[in-house]
Amino acid sequence: MKTEKISELTTNRLSVYLRCLNELAASGVEAVSSKTMAEQFNLNSAQIRKDLAYFGEFGVRGVGYNVEELRRQLIEILGLTVKRKVAIVGLGNLGTALANYHGFSQGNFEVVGLFDDDPAKLGNRTRAGLRIQSTQALTDAIRREGIEIVVIAVPANAAERVLEQVTEAGVRAVLNFAPVHLAAKPGVKVKNVDLTISLESLSYFLANPSSEAINIVDREFLRHEAAAGAAK
Amino acid sequence: MKTEKISELTTNRLSVYLRCLNELAASGVEAVSSKTMAEQFNLNSAQIRKDLAYFGEFGVRGVGYNVEELRRQLIEILGLTVKRKVAIVGLGNLGTALANYHGFSQGNFEVVGLFDDDPAKLGNRTRAGLRIQSTQALTDAIRREGIEIVVIAVPANAAERVLEQVTEAGVRAVLNFAPVHLAAKPGVKVKNVDLTISLESLSYFLANPSSEAINIVDREFLRHEAAAGAAK
Repeated sequence: MKTEKISELTTNRLSVYLRCLNELAASGVEAVSSKTMAEQFNLNSAQIRKDLAYFGEFGVRGVGYNVEELRRQLIEILGLTVKRKVAIVGLGNLGTALANYHGFSQGNFEVVGLFDDDPAKLGNRTRAGLRIQSTQALTDAIRREGIEIVVIAVPANAAERVLEQVTEAGVRAVLNFAPVHLAAKPGVKVKNVDLTISLESLSYFLANPSSEAINIVDREFLRHEAAAGAAK
Repeated sequence: MKTEKISELTTNRLSVYLRCLNELAASGVEAVSSKTMAEQFNLNSAQIRKDLAYFGEFGVRGVGYNVEELRRQLIEILGLTVKRKVAIVGLGNLGTALANYHGFSQGNFEVVGLFDDDPAKLGNRTRAGLRIQSTQALTDAIRREGIEIVVIAVPANAAERVLEQVTEAGVRAVLNFAPVHLAAKPGVKVKNVDLTISLESLSYFLANPSSEAINIVDREFLRHEAAAGAAK
Protein backbone atom coordinates (compact mmCIF):
# COMPACT_ATOMS: atom_id res chain seq x y z
CA MET A 1 0.00 0.00 0.00
CA LYS A 2 1.38 3.39 -0.96
CA THR A 3 1.61 5.84 1.89
CA GLU A 4 1.30 9.03 -0.13
CA LYS A 5 -1.26 11.70 0.68
CA ILE A 6 -4.71 10.19 0.90
CA SER A 7 -7.23 12.97 1.23
CA GLU A 8 -10.33 12.82 3.31
CA LEU A 9 -12.42 13.08 0.17
CA THR A 10 -10.75 9.88 -1.02
CA THR A 11 -11.57 7.98 2.17
CA ASN A 12 -15.15 9.24 1.91
CA ARG A 13 -15.30 7.83 -1.61
CA LEU A 14 -13.90 4.50 -0.41
CA SER A 15 -16.84 4.34 2.02
CA VAL A 16 -19.18 5.00 -0.88
CA TYR A 17 -17.53 2.27 -3.01
CA LEU A 18 -17.87 -0.15 -0.11
CA ARG A 19 -21.61 0.52 0.08
CA CYS A 20 -21.93 -0.08 -3.66
CA LEU A 21 -19.97 -3.33 -3.41
CA ASN A 22 -22.10 -4.46 -0.47
CA GLU A 23 -25.15 -4.01 -2.64
CA LEU A 24 -23.53 -5.81 -5.61
CA ALA A 25 -22.50 -8.69 -3.34
CA ALA A 26 -26.02 -8.92 -1.93
CA SER A 27 -27.34 -9.17 -5.52
CA GLY A 28 -24.94 -12.01 -6.25
CA VAL A 29 -22.66 -10.04 -8.60
CA GLU A 30 -19.16 -11.57 -8.59
CA ALA A 31 -17.16 -9.19 -10.80
CA VAL A 32 -17.66 -5.57 -11.81
CA SER A 33 -15.76 -3.13 -14.01
CA SER A 34 -15.15 0.45 -12.94
CA LYS A 35 -17.30 1.49 -15.90
CA THR A 36 -20.31 -0.61 -14.85
CA MET A 37 -19.91 0.45 -11.25
CA ALA A 38 -19.77 4.09 -12.31
CA GLU A 39 -22.90 3.76 -14.44
CA GLN A 40 -24.89 1.82 -11.88
CA PHE A 41 -24.09 4.11 -8.97
CA ASN A 42 -23.64 7.42 -10.80
CA LEU A 43 -19.93 7.70 -10.05
CA ASN A 44 -16.89 8.56 -12.14
CA SER A 45 -15.06 5.51 -13.55
CA ALA A 46 -11.68 7.22 -13.92
CA GLN A 47 -11.97 8.41 -10.33
CA ILE A 48 -12.77 4.88 -9.13
CA ARG A 49 -9.68 3.48 -10.88
CA LYS A 50 -7.51 6.29 -9.53
CA ASP A 51 -8.76 5.96 -5.96
CA LEU A 52 -8.29 2.22 -5.88
CA ALA A 53 -4.86 2.45 -7.51
CA TYR A 54 -3.66 4.30 -4.39
CA PHE A 55 -3.93 1.04 -2.56
CA GLY A 56 -2.46 -1.32 -5.13
CA GLU A 57 -3.74 -3.19 -8.16
CA PHE A 58 -7.17 -4.67 -7.58
CA GLY A 59 -8.69 -4.83 -11.03
CA VAL A 60 -7.98 -7.12 -13.95
CA ARG A 61 -8.17 -5.36 -17.32
CA GLY A 62 -11.18 -6.57 -19.29
CA VAL A 63 -12.63 -8.45 -16.33
CA GLY A 64 -12.97 -5.84 -13.64
CA TYR A 65 -12.82 -6.15 -9.92
CA ASN A 66 -13.64 -9.27 -7.95
CA VAL A 67 -16.47 -7.94 -5.79
CA GLU A 68 -15.78 -10.03 -2.68
CA GLU A 69 -12.05 -9.47 -2.84
CA LEU A 70 -12.41 -5.70 -3.30
CA ARG A 71 -14.94 -5.54 -0.45
CA ARG A 72 -12.55 -7.38 1.82
CA GLN A 73 -9.70 -5.05 0.86
CA LEU A 74 -11.76 -1.89 1.39
CA ILE A 75 -12.97 -3.16 4.76
CA GLU A 76 -9.34 -3.67 5.71
CA ILE A 77 -8.14 -0.33 4.31
CA LEU A 78 -10.90 1.53 6.15
CA GLY A 79 -9.96 -0.21 9.37
CA LEU A 80 -13.38 -1.83 9.62
CA THR A 81 -12.05 -5.20 10.75
CA VAL A 82 -11.80 -3.95 14.33
CA LYS A 83 -14.67 -2.85 16.54
CA ARG A 84 -14.34 0.83 17.54
CA LYS A 85 -15.84 2.11 20.76
CA VAL A 86 -17.60 5.45 20.52
CA ALA A 87 -18.67 8.02 23.13
CA ILE A 88 -21.15 10.82 22.53
CA VAL A 89 -20.66 14.05 24.49
CA GLY A 90 -23.65 16.39 24.68
CA LEU A 91 -27.12 14.86 24.85
CA GLY A 92 -29.18 17.72 23.51
CA ASN A 93 -31.47 17.04 20.57
CA LEU A 94 -28.65 16.25 18.17
CA GLY A 95 -26.66 14.09 20.60
CA THR A 96 -29.79 12.19 21.56
CA ALA A 97 -30.64 11.68 17.90
CA LEU A 98 -27.12 10.36 17.27
CA ALA A 99 -27.32 8.09 20.32
CA ASN A 100 -30.48 6.58 18.86
CA TYR A 101 -29.15 6.54 15.26
CA HIS A 102 -28.55 2.87 14.76
CA GLY A 103 -25.82 3.36 12.18
CA PHE A 104 -23.74 4.65 15.08
CA SER A 105 -24.04 1.43 17.04
CA GLN A 106 -23.81 -1.33 14.50
CA GLY A 107 -21.24 -2.92 12.29
CA ASN A 108 -17.88 -1.81 13.54
CA PHE A 109 -18.97 0.96 15.82
CA GLU A 110 -20.38 0.62 19.30
CA VAL A 111 -21.61 3.56 21.33
CA VAL A 112 -20.52 2.68 24.86
CA GLY A 113 -20.80 6.02 26.67
CA LEU A 114 -23.04 9.09 26.81
CA PHE A 115 -21.89 12.21 28.65
CA ASP A 116 -23.55 15.51 29.49
CA ASP A 117 -22.95 18.41 31.87
CA ASP A 118 -26.59 18.94 32.70
CA PRO A 119 -27.42 17.38 36.12
CA ALA A 120 -31.08 17.07 35.06
CA LYS A 121 -30.07 14.63 32.31
CA LEU A 122 -27.86 12.34 34.38
CA GLY A 123 -29.15 8.82 34.68
CA ASN A 124 -31.55 9.23 31.75
CA ARG A 125 -31.40 6.32 29.37
CA THR A 126 -31.52 6.24 25.57
CA ARG A 127 -33.55 3.79 23.54
CA ALA A 128 -30.58 1.43 23.54
CA GLY A 129 -30.58 1.49 27.34
CA LEU A 130 -27.37 3.50 27.84
CA ARG A 131 -27.33 5.76 30.89
CA ILE A 132 -26.16 9.39 30.59
CA GLN A 133 -23.12 10.11 32.77
CA SER A 134 -21.47 13.32 33.93
CA THR A 135 -18.68 14.67 31.71
CA GLN A 136 -16.54 14.49 34.83
CA ALA A 137 -16.54 10.73 34.32
CA LEU A 138 -15.46 11.07 30.68
CA THR A 139 -11.67 10.87 31.09
CA ASP A 140 -11.87 7.75 33.24
CA ALA A 141 -14.37 6.10 30.92
CA ILE A 142 -12.19 6.71 27.85
CA ARG A 143 -9.24 5.01 29.52
CA ARG A 144 -11.21 2.23 31.18
CA GLU A 145 -13.39 1.33 28.19
CA GLY A 146 -10.82 1.99 25.46
CA ILE A 147 -13.01 4.54 23.69
CA GLU A 148 -11.39 5.45 20.36
CA ILE A 149 -13.87 7.86 18.79
CA VAL A 150 -15.65 10.76 20.50
CA VAL A 151 -18.66 12.46 18.93
CA ILE A 152 -18.99 16.08 20.06
CA ALA A 153 -22.57 17.40 20.08
CA VAL A 154 -22.27 20.15 22.70
CA PRO A 155 -22.97 23.87 22.14
CA ALA A 156 -20.31 25.74 20.15
CA ASN A 157 -18.77 27.44 23.18
CA ALA A 158 -18.12 24.12 24.96
CA ALA A 159 -16.72 22.16 22.01
CA GLU A 160 -13.07 23.21 22.29
CA ARG A 161 -13.01 22.28 25.99
CA VAL A 162 -14.40 18.81 25.26
CA LEU A 163 -11.84 18.35 22.48
CA GLU A 164 -9.03 19.15 24.90
CA GLN A 165 -10.38 16.86 27.58
CA VAL A 166 -10.75 13.85 25.29
CA THR A 167 -7.44 14.28 23.48
CA GLU A 168 -5.67 14.54 26.84
CA ALA A 169 -7.35 11.27 27.74
CA GLY A 170 -5.81 9.73 24.61
CA VAL A 171 -8.59 9.91 22.01
CA ARG A 172 -7.25 10.40 18.48
CA ALA A 173 -10.46 10.54 16.43
CA VAL A 174 -13.20 13.14 16.93
CA LEU A 175 -16.39 13.73 15.00
CA ASN A 176 -17.57 17.28 15.63
CA PHE A 177 -21.20 18.29 15.12
CA ALA A 178 -20.93 21.48 17.19
CA PRO A 179 -21.43 24.52 14.96
CA VAL A 180 -17.83 25.66 15.24
CA HIS A 181 -14.74 24.59 13.31
CA LEU A 182 -12.38 22.67 15.58
CA ALA A 183 -8.77 22.47 14.44
CA ALA A 184 -6.98 19.14 14.78
CA LYS A 185 -4.04 18.68 17.09
CA PRO A 186 -0.94 16.74 16.04
CA GLY A 187 -1.77 13.05 15.80
CA VAL A 188 -5.48 13.70 16.29
CA LYS A 189 -8.06 13.60 13.52
CA VAL A 190 -10.98 15.99 13.90
CA LYS A 191 -13.78 15.65 11.40
CA ASN A 192 -16.12 18.62 11.34
CA VAL A 193 -19.54 17.73 10.00
CA ASP A 194 -21.24 20.49 8.07
CA LEU A 195 -24.84 19.60 7.30
CA THR A 196 -25.29 22.62 5.02
CA ILE A 197 -23.09 21.02 2.33
CA SER A 198 -26.04 18.74 1.56
CA LEU A 199 -28.35 21.71 1.19
CA GLU A 200 -25.97 23.36 -1.27
CA SER A 201 -25.94 20.24 -3.37
CA LEU A 202 -29.74 20.39 -3.58
CA SER A 203 -29.50 24.06 -4.43
CA TYR A 204 -27.28 23.12 -7.39
CA PHE A 205 -29.96 20.77 -8.64
CA LEU A 206 -32.68 23.39 -8.31
CA ALA A 207 -30.52 25.87 -10.22
CA ASN A 208 -29.71 23.30 -12.92
CA PRO A 209 -32.83 21.19 -13.36
CA SER A 210 -31.74 20.08 -16.82
CA SER A 211 -28.54 18.54 -15.50
CA GLU A 212 -29.53 14.98 -16.26
CA ALA A 213 -27.09 13.18 -13.99
CA ILE A 214 -28.66 14.73 -10.98
CA ASN A 215 -31.97 13.17 -11.98
CA ILE A 216 -30.49 9.73 -11.63
CA VAL A 217 -31.21 8.01 -8.35
CA ASP A 218 -28.66 9.05 -5.78
CA ARG A 219 -26.96 5.80 -5.03
CA GLU A 220 -23.86 7.33 -3.53
CA PHE A 221 -25.07 7.18 -0.01
CA LEU A 222 -26.52 3.71 -0.01
CA ARG A 223 -27.17 2.80 3.51
CA HIS A 224 -26.11 0.04 5.75
CA GLU A 225 -29.58 0.69 7.08
CA ALA A 226 -31.33 -0.77 4.04
CA ALA A 227 -29.83 -4.14 4.84
CA ALA A 228 -30.18 -3.65 8.58
CA GLY A 229 -33.84 -2.71 8.20
CA ALA A 230 -34.55 -5.81 6.13
CA ALA A 231 -32.91 -8.01 8.74
CA LYS A 232 -35.17 -6.78 11.53
CA MET B 1 -21.19 25.90 -19.15
CA LYS B 2 -21.05 22.28 -20.24
CA THR B 3 -24.07 20.23 -19.36
CA GLU B 4 -22.40 16.83 -19.20
CA LYS B 5 -22.77 14.54 -16.21
CA ILE B 6 -21.88 16.34 -13.02
CA SER B 7 -21.81 13.91 -10.15
CA GLU B 8 -23.00 14.65 -6.68
CA LEU B 9 -19.46 14.18 -5.41
CA THR B 10 -18.43 17.03 -7.72
CA THR B 11 -21.09 19.40 -6.40
CA ASN B 12 -20.05 18.47 -2.86
CA ARG B 13 -16.49 19.42 -3.74
CA LEU B 14 -17.68 22.71 -5.23
CA SER B 15 -19.23 23.49 -1.83
CA VAL B 16 -15.91 22.69 -0.20
CA TYR B 17 -14.02 24.93 -2.65
CA LEU B 18 -16.46 27.73 -1.95
CA ARG B 19 -15.77 27.46 1.79
CA CYS B 20 -12.02 27.59 1.11
CA LEU B 21 -12.44 30.64 -1.14
CA ASN B 22 -14.60 32.35 1.47
CA GLU B 23 -11.78 31.91 3.95
CA LEU B 24 -9.15 33.14 1.45
CA ALA B 25 -11.30 36.18 0.62
CA ALA B 26 -11.74 36.92 4.33
CA SER B 27 -7.92 36.84 4.69
CA GLY B 28 -7.54 39.31 1.83
CA VAL B 29 -6.06 36.84 -0.67
CA GLU B 30 -6.81 38.00 -4.22
CA ALA B 31 -5.44 35.17 -6.37
CA VAL B 32 -4.74 31.52 -5.69
CA SER B 33 -3.35 28.64 -7.75
CA SER B 34 -4.91 25.19 -7.61
CA LYS B 35 -1.61 23.99 -6.13
CA THR B 36 -1.64 26.51 -3.27
CA MET B 37 -5.31 25.89 -2.62
CA ALA B 38 -4.69 22.14 -2.56
CA GLU B 39 -1.82 22.49 -0.11
CA GLN B 40 -3.56 24.93 2.18
CA PHE B 41 -6.79 22.99 2.41
CA ASN B 42 -5.48 19.43 1.97
CA LEU B 43 -7.18 18.91 -1.37
CA ASN B 44 -6.04 17.47 -4.70
CA SER B 45 -4.86 20.13 -7.19
CA ALA B 46 -5.54 18.04 -10.32
CA GLN B 47 -9.03 17.36 -8.99
CA ILE B 48 -9.62 21.08 -8.41
CA ARG B 49 -8.59 21.92 -11.98
CA LYS B 50 -10.73 19.12 -13.36
CA ASP B 51 -13.81 20.03 -11.34
CA LEU B 52 -13.63 23.68 -12.25
CA ALA B 53 -12.97 22.89 -15.91
CA TYR B 54 -16.46 21.34 -16.08
CA PHE B 55 -17.84 24.82 -15.79
CA GLY B 56 -15.50 26.67 -18.13
CA GLU B 57 -12.08 28.23 -17.88
CA PHE B 58 -11.58 30.11 -14.65
CA GLY B 59 -7.85 29.98 -14.04
CA VAL B 60 -4.98 31.80 -15.72
CA ARG B 61 -1.88 29.65 -16.14
CA GLY B 62 0.92 30.85 -13.85
CA VAL B 63 -1.38 33.25 -12.00
CA GLY B 64 -4.14 31.04 -10.69
CA TYR B 65 -7.72 31.86 -9.96
CA ASN B 66 -9.06 35.26 -9.08
CA VAL B 67 -10.57 34.52 -5.67
CA GLU B 68 -13.52 36.93 -5.86
CA GLU B 69 -14.36 35.99 -9.42
CA LEU B 70 -14.23 32.26 -8.68
CA ARG B 71 -16.33 32.70 -5.54
CA ARG B 72 -18.94 34.62 -7.52
CA GLN B 73 -18.99 31.89 -10.18
CA LEU B 74 -19.30 29.04 -7.67
CA ILE B 75 -22.10 30.85 -5.86
CA GLU B 76 -23.89 31.13 -9.18
CA ILE B 77 -23.18 27.53 -10.24
CA LEU B 78 -24.44 26.21 -6.90
CA GLY B 79 -27.59 28.27 -7.27
CA LEU B 80 -26.80 30.22 -4.12
CA THR B 81 -27.89 33.56 -5.56
CA VAL B 82 -31.52 32.77 -4.80
CA LYS B 83 -33.05 32.24 -1.36
CA ARG B 84 -34.46 28.71 -0.99
CA LYS B 85 -37.32 28.02 1.38
CA VAL B 86 -36.97 24.86 3.46
CA ALA B 87 -39.48 22.78 5.45
CA ILE B 88 -38.56 20.17 8.05
CA VAL B 89 -40.88 17.20 8.47
CA GLY B 90 -40.54 15.20 11.69
CA LEU B 91 -39.68 17.08 14.86
CA GLY B 92 -38.14 14.30 16.91
CA ASN B 93 -34.66 14.82 18.30
CA LEU B 94 -32.98 15.02 14.92
CA GLY B 95 -35.62 17.26 13.31
CA THR B 96 -35.56 19.58 16.30
CA ALA B 97 -31.77 19.69 16.18
CA LEU B 98 -31.92 20.56 12.47
CA ALA B 99 -34.58 23.22 13.10
CA ASN B 100 -32.21 24.83 15.60
CA TYR B 101 -29.09 24.26 13.47
CA HIS B 102 -28.37 27.75 12.30
CA GLY B 103 -26.61 26.64 9.12
CA PHE B 104 -30.06 25.57 7.97
CA SER B 105 -31.55 29.00 8.33
CA GLN B 106 -28.89 31.39 7.14
CA GLY B 107 -27.25 32.42 3.94
CA ASN B 108 -29.42 31.16 1.14
CA PHE B 109 -31.64 28.82 3.07
CA GLU B 110 -34.60 29.74 5.21
CA VAL B 111 -36.54 27.23 7.27
CA VAL B 112 -40.13 28.45 6.95
CA GLY B 113 -42.13 25.42 8.08
CA LEU B 114 -42.00 22.62 10.66
CA PHE B 115 -44.37 19.67 10.41
CA ASP B 116 -45.11 16.70 12.63
CA ASP B 117 -47.83 14.07 13.01
CA ASP B 118 -47.75 14.02 16.80
CA PRO B 119 -50.67 16.08 18.19
CA ALA B 120 -48.69 16.63 21.41
CA LYS B 121 -46.07 18.59 19.48
CA LEU B 122 -48.40 20.88 17.54
CA GLY B 123 -48.00 24.52 18.42
CA ASN B 124 -44.62 23.98 20.07
CA ARG B 125 -42.07 26.52 18.97
CA THR B 126 -38.39 26.12 18.15
CA ARG B 127 -35.68 28.47 19.32
CA ALA B 128 -36.17 30.52 16.17
CA GLY B 129 -39.85 30.92 17.08
CA LEU B 130 -41.34 28.71 14.38
CA ARG B 131 -44.50 26.88 15.35
CA ILE B 132 -44.89 23.15 14.62
CA GLN B 133 -47.83 22.40 12.31
CA SER B 134 -49.70 19.23 11.41
CA THR B 135 -48.37 17.33 8.38
CA GLN B 136 -51.92 17.67 7.04
CA ALA B 137 -51.03 21.32 6.42
CA LEU B 138 -47.84 20.41 4.55
CA THR B 139 -49.17 20.29 0.99
CA ASP B 140 -50.89 23.66 1.30
CA ALA B 141 -47.85 25.23 2.93
CA ILE B 142 -45.52 24.02 0.18
CA ARG B 143 -47.70 25.63 -2.48
CA ARG B 144 -48.51 28.78 -0.54
CA GLU B 145 -44.99 29.50 0.72
CA GLY B 146 -43.10 28.24 -2.32
CA ILE B 147 -41.09 25.71 -0.32
CA GLU B 148 -38.38 24.24 -2.56
CA ILE B 149 -36.50 21.90 -0.23
CA VAL B 150 -37.98 19.43 2.25
CA VAL B 151 -35.88 17.86 4.99
CA ILE B 152 -37.25 14.46 6.05
CA ALA B 153 -36.49 13.51 9.66
CA VAL B 154 -39.35 11.13 10.37
CA PRO B 155 -39.00 7.45 11.38
CA ALA B 156 -37.94 5.07 8.60
CA ASN B 157 -41.41 3.62 8.06
CA ALA B 158 -42.96 7.07 7.43
CA ALA B 159 -40.28 8.48 5.11
CA GLU B 160 -41.59 7.13 1.81
CA ARG B 161 -45.08 8.50 2.52
CA VAL B 162 -43.67 11.97 3.23
CA LEU B 163 -41.59 11.80 0.05
CA GLU B 164 -44.72 11.04 -1.96
CA GLN B 165 -46.72 13.80 -0.33
CA VAL B 166 -44.13 16.51 -0.91
CA THR B 167 -43.26 15.52 -4.47
CA GLU B 168 -46.98 15.51 -5.32
CA ALA B 169 -47.08 19.02 -3.94
CA GLY B 170 -44.32 20.00 -6.36
CA VAL B 171 -41.13 19.76 -4.28
CA ARG B 172 -38.13 18.70 -6.35
CA ALA B 173 -35.35 18.60 -3.74
CA VAL B 174 -35.41 16.39 -0.66
CA LEU B 175 -32.80 15.87 2.04
CA ASN B 176 -33.46 12.56 3.78
CA PHE B 177 -32.15 11.88 7.29
CA ALA B 178 -34.52 8.97 7.94
CA PRO B 179 -32.55 5.73 8.27
CA VAL B 180 -33.84 4.28 5.03
CA HIS B 181 -32.67 4.77 1.45
CA LEU B 182 -35.25 6.74 -0.53
CA ALA B 183 -35.04 6.44 -4.30
CA ALA B 184 -35.50 9.56 -6.35
CA LYS B 185 -38.42 10.03 -8.69
CA PRO B 186 -38.00 11.49 -12.19
CA GLY B 187 -37.20 15.18 -11.92
CA VAL B 188 -36.80 14.97 -8.15
CA LYS B 189 -33.46 14.98 -6.35
CA VAL B 190 -33.34 12.97 -3.13
CA LYS B 191 -30.18 13.25 -1.10
CA ASN B 192 -29.82 10.55 1.54
CA VAL B 193 -27.57 11.61 4.39
CA ASP B 194 -25.57 8.80 5.94
CA LEU B 195 -23.82 9.95 9.08
CA THR B 196 -21.83 6.73 9.38
CA ILE B 197 -19.63 7.73 6.40
CA SER B 198 -17.91 10.17 8.76
CA LEU B 199 -17.27 7.42 11.29
CA GLU B 200 -15.67 5.24 8.62
CA SER B 201 -13.33 8.03 7.67
CA LEU B 202 -12.18 8.25 11.30
CA SER B 203 -11.80 4.49 11.34
CA TYR B 204 -9.42 4.82 8.37
CA PHE B 205 -7.30 7.25 10.33
CA LEU B 206 -7.20 4.98 13.38
CA ALA B 207 -6.15 2.08 11.17
CA ASN B 208 -3.49 4.17 9.40
CA PRO B 209 -2.06 6.53 12.03
CA SER B 210 1.10 7.06 9.98
CA SER B 211 -0.88 8.41 7.02
CA GLU B 212 0.49 11.93 7.22
CA ALA B 213 -2.16 13.72 5.20
CA ILE B 214 -4.82 12.76 7.66
CA ASN B 215 -2.87 14.47 10.38
CA ILE B 216 -3.20 17.76 8.61
CA VAL B 217 -6.00 19.94 9.90
CA ASP B 218 -9.23 18.96 8.25
CA ARG B 219 -10.04 22.09 6.34
CA GLU B 220 -12.43 20.47 3.93
CA PHE B 221 -15.50 21.25 5.91
CA LEU B 222 -14.76 24.82 6.86
CA ARG B 223 -17.87 26.27 8.25
CA HIS B 224 -20.01 29.20 7.45
CA GLU B 225 -20.52 29.00 11.18
CA ALA B 226 -16.99 30.16 11.98
CA ALA B 227 -17.76 33.49 10.33
CA ALA B 228 -21.34 33.54 11.59
CA GLY B 229 -20.19 32.86 15.14
CA ALA B 230 -17.67 35.68 14.99
CA ALA B 231 -20.34 38.06 13.77
CA LYS B 232 -22.58 37.41 16.76
